Amino acid sequence: MMPGSHIVFHPGSMVLDLLDQRALPGEEKRLQCADVASLVFAIKSMAVRGAPAIGVAAAYGCVIAANEAKDDAGLAGLLAEIEKARPTAVNLAWAVGRMKAIWQRGAPLEQTREKFLAEAVAIHEADIAACEAIGRNGAALIDDGDCILTHCNAGALATGGYGTALGVIRAAFEAGKKISVIADETRPLLQGARLSAYELAKLGIPVKIACDNACALIMGRGMVQKVVVGADRIAANGDVANKIGTCGVAVLARHFGVPFYVAAPLSTIDASIENGGDIPIESRAADEVCVINGKRITPQGVDALNFAFDVTPANLVAGIITERGILKPPYRQSIARVLNGDAR
Amino acid sequence: MMPGSHIVFHPGSMVLDLLDQRALPGEEKRLQCADVASLVFAIKSMAVRGAPAIGVAAAYGCVIAANEAKDDAGLAGLLAEIEKARPTAVNLAWAVGRMKAIWQRGAPLEQTREKFLAEAVAIHEADIAACEAIGRNGAALIDDGDCILTHCNAGALATGGYGTALGVIRAAFEAGKKISVIADETRPLLQGARLSAYELAKLGIPVKIACDNACALIMGRGMVQKVVVGADRIAANGDVANKIGTCGVAVLARHFGVPFYVAAPLSTIDASIENGGDIPIESRAADEVCVINGKRITPQGVDALNFAFDVTPANLVAGIITERGILKPPYRQSIARVLNGDAR
Repeated sequence: MMPGSHIVFHPGSMVLDLLDQRALPGEEKRLQCADVASLVFAIKSMAVRGAPAIGVAAAYGCVIAANEAKDDAGLAGLLAEIEKARPTAVNLAWAVGRMKAIWQRGAPLEQTREKFLAEAVAIHEADIAACEAIGRNGAALIDDGDCILTHCNAGALATGGYGTALGVIRAAFEAGKKISVIADETRPLLQGARLSAYELAKLGIPVKIACDNACALIMGRGMVQKVVVGADRIAANGDVANKIGTCGVAVLARHFGVPFYVAAPLSTIDASIENGGDIPIESRAADEVCVINGKRITPQGVDALNFAFDVTPANLVAGIITERGILKPPYRQSIARVLNGDAR
Repeated sequence: MMPGSHIVFHPGSMVLDLLDQRALPGEEKRLQCADVASLVFAIKSMAVRGAPAIGVAAAYGCVIAANEAKDDAGLAGLLAEIEKARPTAVNLAWAVGRMKAIWQRGAPLEQTREKFLAEAVAIHEADIAACEAIGRNGAALIDDGDCILTHCNAGALATGGYGTALGVIRAAFEAGKKISVIADETRPLLQGARLSAYELAKLGIPVKIACDNACALIMGRGMVQKVVVGADRIAANGDVANKIGTCGVAVLARHFGVPFYVAAPLSTIDASIENGGDIPIESRAADEVCVINGKRITPQGVDALNFAFDVTPANLVAGIITERGILKPPYRQSIARVLNGDAR
């Protein structure tokens, strides 16, 4: 199965059918969410992950909520549950917020469900279109012969389809540029080793995995010419919350003179947040670090830190690749302009 | 079992009895090496690892070689096999070199075996004494209340006993300083999560594990006050080869203003190497990255980079803690002085 059909909503049965990303690349298992509780679990457990993909899944989750709710109060409660499933990616709150904005309280729930469905489909389609535009815009930055380092998975699986960071790589490859990728494995959940490798291999793009800690050696030896990563939330000043390890890659990129780019749709920008220090950073269970493939790697009783994201300061970012062009520093201005709909 | 008895030589049976570090922390298995081939396998497979520990094991391996060889040519061949078991840690060649220096070709092999045994015991005892002195010297750098980040395992297990980087931490703790440790898990073989955590927990020193990629977040939040790591080889100019990821930690430490120290015995300094660019860096099998606890995490056919070490440039090192004091920049001078036996 090609990535892209990883989020499929069946309006007849009101079931969201997800490719379970936890089982990849070993198994292509599907997960059916027929109620809000199972959708929230799919998001929390990262069966579906990646900021834009979470937004799309949440949008369909709102449709399920409108179907499941007995009344307006019930619907409000279900939407709140979806909204708080994970804290860092803004796309989750953004998608639920779009539903709330079109929700006419007092209207028949069936009518709300139909409106939510149309909105969810619009969000999904707009996300794919945005990713394709991000790909086109970003591909111009990639030179023939480049090896590109990416961290985590910002591919089709992490979005409605096509991908952000991997969308840029894919578009450059599809434009005929001879490129290759080094994918950080991205501990603890190995989204790079499992998911980016899976997507890139399916697309026929040459890829090698590296442990996260190999980044300095790789850059020091001149093995990569660009870094492109995704984002979970971008503050008004251009600070970027993304998967843990991203900030370290950005600091190393600056040290070794490698341009560091972020690829993200405008829905990932949270203009209500002044700077990255105010972005909530999720802490997840220590056992995600301590237990690998069912086996404990650490001594019993030893705890682990497990921050899921970090914040890369805007001054380390060479450009933010959006569906409306590449934003450049100073980001406070370029972000404000693009959100106001001005040409860049 | 406390670390320290992890390398035991039995002169009667000519068997080197090793704690198999691959099985830790889950199991405390022993591995008996009764011939050179099994000793070389133990080093290559990292049943025994850590530059000074490899040196000690190699020294006992030379005794086994002198017992196993039929003549001088046979012994020369066996010593060469030991010497080339792994390329980066200089202690291996250094220990074999010490044996060669006292080897009188033509003398009865029984006599050589006795001389090698005395030399191996001397190397082992000197390494423990050096680590204790490194601990005492380095403890002075650690302040009450410090949280210290370390990478990989430079503890008792990595040495003849006591440890280098963990020796510094241990000595500070034994001196009554209230300290804690964050141990990078150190992919792919997880020496931090498995071995440093095991040693520190046994010593009662508070420790938390973090994924290697969490370093920037940890430093950015001011969660660590010092970095102390070990070394596999130090060039004449102070460049430090150590476990992959060390250079990245050093760059981040510089970026976030955290002092970065290296702790190593003088036997780790290779004055014949001008700078780190000339240190051979071992590349290991991709499956060490791609397969965790028996399960493949990457798609079939996707390869992984697996450089085992990197080189930290001397200009990122705040001090090199040795048994003869703390070397300071400029390292070319301070290293030359200490190797000439001058006071620092």
